[in-house]
Amino acid sequence: MSNYTAPVEDMGFVLREVVELEKLCSETGLDTSTIDIIDTVLDAAGKLAKEEIEPINKPGDLEGLKINSTGEVTTATGFKEAYRHYVEGGWGSLQFDTKYGGQGVPFVVAASVQEMWHSANMSWGLCPLLTQGAVEAITHNASDELKQLYLPKLISGEWSGTMNLTEGDAGTDVGALKTRATPEKDHYLIRGQKIYVTWGEHDMTENIVHLVLARLPNTPQGVKGISLFLVPKILVNDDGSLGEANDLKALSLEDKIGIHACPTCVMSYGDKTGAIGYLVGEENKGIQCMFTMMNNARLTVGLQGVSVSERAYQQALSFCNERVQGVAPGHKEAGPIIRHPDVRRMLANMKSIAEASRALTYTACAEVDFTGGDLPTDDLDQHKRRLGLLTPIVKGWCTETAQEVASLSLQCHGGMGYIEETGIAQIVRDARILPIYEGTNGIQAMDLVVRKIIGDKGLAINELIVDMRKSLSSLLPGSPLLSSQIDRFKGSVDDLEKTVSLLLKHSTNRKFSGSVAFDVLMMTSTITAAWKMFVSVERAKLALESNKVSSEFFDDKTTTAQYFIDSILPRYVSHFMAINSADTGGQ
Amino acid sequence: MSNYTAPVEDMGFVLREVVELEKLCSETGLDTSTIDIIDTVLDAAGKLAKEEIEPINKPGDLEGLKINSTGEVTTATGFKEAYRHYVEGGWGSLQFDTKYGGQGVPFVVAASVQEMWHSANMSWGLCPLLTQGAVEAITHNASDELKQLYLPKLISGEWSGTMNLTEGDAGTDVGALKTRATPEKDHYLIRGQKIYVTWGEHDMTENIVHLVLARLPNTPQGVKGISLFLVPKILVNDDGSLGEANDLKALSLEDKIGIHACPTCVMSYGDKTGAIGYLVGEENKGIQCMFTMMNNARLTVGLQGVSVSERAYQQALSFCNERVQGVAPGHKEAGPIIRHPDVRRMLANMKSIAEASRALTYTACAEVDFTGGDLPTDDLDQHKRRLGLLTPIVKGWCTETAQEVASLSLQCHGGMGYIEETGIAQIVRDARILPIYEGTNGIQAMDLVVRKIIGDKGLAINELIVDMRKSLSSLLPGSPLLSSQIDRFKGSVDDLEKTVSLLLKHSTNRKFSGSVAFDVLMMTSTITAAWKMFVSVERAKLALESNKVSSEFFDDKTTTAQYFIDSILPRYVSHFMAINSADTGGQ
Repeated sequence: MSNYTAPVEDMGFVLREVVELEKLCSETGLDTSTIDIIDTVLDAAGKLAKEEIEPINKPGDLEGLKINSTGEVTTATGFKEAYRHYVEGGWGSLQFDTKYGGQGVPFVVAASVQEMWHSANMSWGLCPLLTQGAVEAITHNASDELKQLYLPKLISGEWSGTMNLTEGDAGTDVGALKTRATPEKDHYLIRGQKIYVTWGEHDMTENIVHLVLARLPNTPQGVKGISLFLVPKILVNDDGSLGEANDLKALSLEDKIGIHACPTCVMSYGDKTGAIGYLVGEENKGIQCMFTMMNNARLTVGLQGVSVSERAYQQALSFCNERVQGVAPGHKEAGPIIRHPDVRRMLANMKSIAEASRALTYTACAEVDFTGGDLPTDDLDQHKRRLGLLTPIVKGWCTETAQEVASLSLQCHGGMGYIEETGIAQIVRDARILPIYEGTNGIQAMDLVVRKIIGDKGLAINELIVDMRKSLSSLLPGSPLLSSQIDRFKGSVDDLEKTVSLLLKHSTNRKFSGSVAFDVLMMTSTITAAWKMFVSVERAKLALESNKVSSEFFDDKTTTAQYFIDSILPRYVSHFMAINSADTGGQ
Repeated sequence: MSNYTAPVEDMGFVLREVVELEKLCSETGLDTSTIDIIDTVLDAAGKLAKEEIEPINKPGDLEGLKINSTGEVTTATGFKEAYRHYVEGGWGSLQFDTKYGGQGVPFVVAASVQEMWHSANMSWGLCPLLTQGAVEAITHNASDELKQLYLPKLISGEWSGTMNLTEGDAGTDVGALKTRATPEKDHYLIRGQKIYVTWGEHDMTENIVHLVLARLPNTPQGVKGISLFLVPKILVNDDGSLGEANDLKALSLEDKIGIHACPTCVMSYGDKTGAIGYLVGEENKGIQCMFTMMNNARLTVGLQGVSVSERAYQQALSFCNERVQGVAPGHKEAGPIIRHPDVRRMLANMKSIAEASRALTYTACAEVDFTGGDLPTDDLDQHKRRLGLLTPIVKGWCTETAQEVASLSLQCHGGMGYIEETGIAQIVRDARILPIYEGTNGIQAMDLVVRKIIGDKGLAINELIVDMRKSLSSLLPGSPLLSSQIDRFKGSVDDLEKTVSLLLKHSTNRKFSGSVAFDVLMMTSTITAAWKMFVSVERAKLALESNKVSSEFFDDKTTTAQYFIDSILPRYVSHFMAINSADTGGQ
């Protein structure tokens, strides 16, 4: 099978034409010099992904990880070297503050680069993903002292970061956690056990910075009594040099269905004297601090969905072009299976979902840039609402559809798909974590309905609907879409509005909102993704007219957008019908 | 986690009230004595499944298989013993001809028992599944001599059977196969290599009877030049005793994503002198003979889908009742997650699909009994058409939905679902083969559209539509369904009729039929499954009135049927819209 090749053309198109990066930079005050070097950045990242990170993906799955009796974890062959090259290339610091050694590149550009890491090797890519979350949590919440001591090495990637939330009886219900923190001089002593700590222990960096949720003595029950602590694997001296080992270790690694090369650790803190930790943010505000980390991590998990869909599509396309089997309609001899209409349907499905996921996710990532920008308050608030609204949509929809695309890709391989040798089975196994971690998709659905739609009385979602209708009313003359397709999208926006009204009508009925939440998530997401494809094809037309894209690219985007609106968008109707059945008491 | 418990109440209900077993037996001339002992049979099979076959499921996945240098395969601990008990209990012979030691029980009853084996342990259950296929191929096609020599031991299960179709370059395109057969005295010499031979070599039986597709010298290209041969692992003397080993062996085992305890073999025939084989059926008619085996195997793979959905649902239900996490709406304290509306949605989804799959699959299996019965020619022809129509529907839909149900069950487990320990990951991995083997679901879709709908100019599908409308017009007074639900089902039948017209309009356009085939399969199946739920709830009402089921059972069935019509049936609309888009040239 062929390796992964980063889809730099579509990435560049979405960044420049759909997200409108130039406008974004000028509105937010971000450095516009990035725009001139996007292609260079994408090409260089694509080279690293293809030549160093992808080749260790399958071997890593087979080799897995080793943990010794003292809890030290050894990563699979080549992981350390690829990571070193990643750090040396400065890839970890793209979007961060120049004050701490970052490069000040827009987050959305960094996201496009991250898409490549996860396409190439999800297990490996999770290490930088968690570090990024740690940087965000520290940047937004920690004291200047902690920032100066920890951020530069986390941003460079010399150190990695982790999130420690879950305990055996505290998963989704994080407020039930029992890890304790006791004040001691200028720090705290942490004692407890955490599970599902991704990249909790490994040999790729000289230090690991754990962000740990724990409970101070005499605090309120539930999430209101939880604080966030920075707990380094190796203690850091005031001059930044490494000191003694902290009192923490990995107890074991989970045996998972996928991401076999990613250490998912059971971590023990404070078995001996207590692990030394430092408060991040205020006491008892840990959950808010963690959410500054979680929210962008949720977007990045959605991005992993894009990565999986892209990779799975590429693998299927390559296989279907090579595998000869049967005589297709309109042909006289046996040929590659891509000739068969049902295979073409599967490929069109995969491609349209991958591209719609990308346009949707990058749009949400651009909102991160807007919310960090120097904007008038009203604009800033609207961007914050939009980001809040799009986050569960991106996390939920792009990870659900990634399951479908990975499974379709496996299906294209026929019997060979079920054999581990082709590698598609690994993609399916790896991908299955996406709808679970960083808040299950059921939680995303509740977040969307209860907090993001009902919570602001429909403000954010109605702003989105207004924007969708703006796109419809500013349709280009001679749109590449058929009028039936435009009408279908228009109808879907009307149905979305009706659904919002229904949710607001039942706003206090939590059983109703809970039972329809997942359907609302899928319906809203499908329509929003269709909107981005609608916008994409319009922008592709403009770009063609100004010679920014080739006619091949334009034709291809048109076909993909048409397929999406014809064959994927209709799915919202079944969700809409299910929601309405619940309303009439049938459910 | 709890073990699997066979859903004998629903099985008995579907057999007695939905399939109407008594009527079936009297119409077909099958022995009606089965009816009195159904509960005893189901209970005894359920006990074997729960106590002997399920407990080796997870250990078998972990232990896997061993193959030595001479190609001998050793199965996982306990597999052999469980199989011996299965043979001793006479479970392999239920539905077969009493002339060869079978018990003459209706196939649909045997199917309900088989559902249990696959729920308990898919890897293990595949051995009897393949043997059943071999028995059917031999019964319908072989000479009396072969029948007398091979059938009794295959029917008892003392010997097992296999299907050898696929070669490296001949999968879906079976006509491309290269294995050769050379006439030699009273037999043939077989030379070639086959892949994906399920249970091709193992230690559970003293002999293995391979059914092998091969090409005679100077035969037409493609499927018309293929013949079917019976090739025993150990040659059988005229008196039925075992003779010398035949010239065949397993070369290797595939490393698969699932069914780790099921040997999927690369088989080599005739490395030395040529493997001795005996012609089954006529020369060059191998593909037809294989189809007598394939068709029922397709139904049985659909049945495996039922098994997976049932098992996955049971595991989720048990987990969600035990796992305490968070405070649900309407509650004041943390409780089991089954209280959360979104978890209830997932469970309702799984349950309604499992029960609809069962009703649909048993209905199709009953058609096997009708087609083997002593009926007037017109009736027989109609049953044959119905069986032909339902086969791709059962195989396609029940295996697609099994993926969804298994994945939802994993999702209910949250993070624990991704860890192998809970066992649900194995169910997901095992289940993934179902949409692939015995003809991929893309092939099922083409079979449905091209052969079963267009091929008979809509006769069979229109007969089905007539039966659906009969059910609607003979609605009981005071139906447990809401009028909106009845209207929705009615509308779906109308839309199905429109789709048939559309397919017939484009009957010669193979590109069109190919590109919409999968949507047609899913649409037709969803509506047919809804019909069976519609019938089920009506029959449950009658059964309640005559005290054949409890009011709890009736209420439960009503809720499940309502959920199916409210939340699953609407999916057909998205397929219908996609099909129509293709018609208007949008696709």
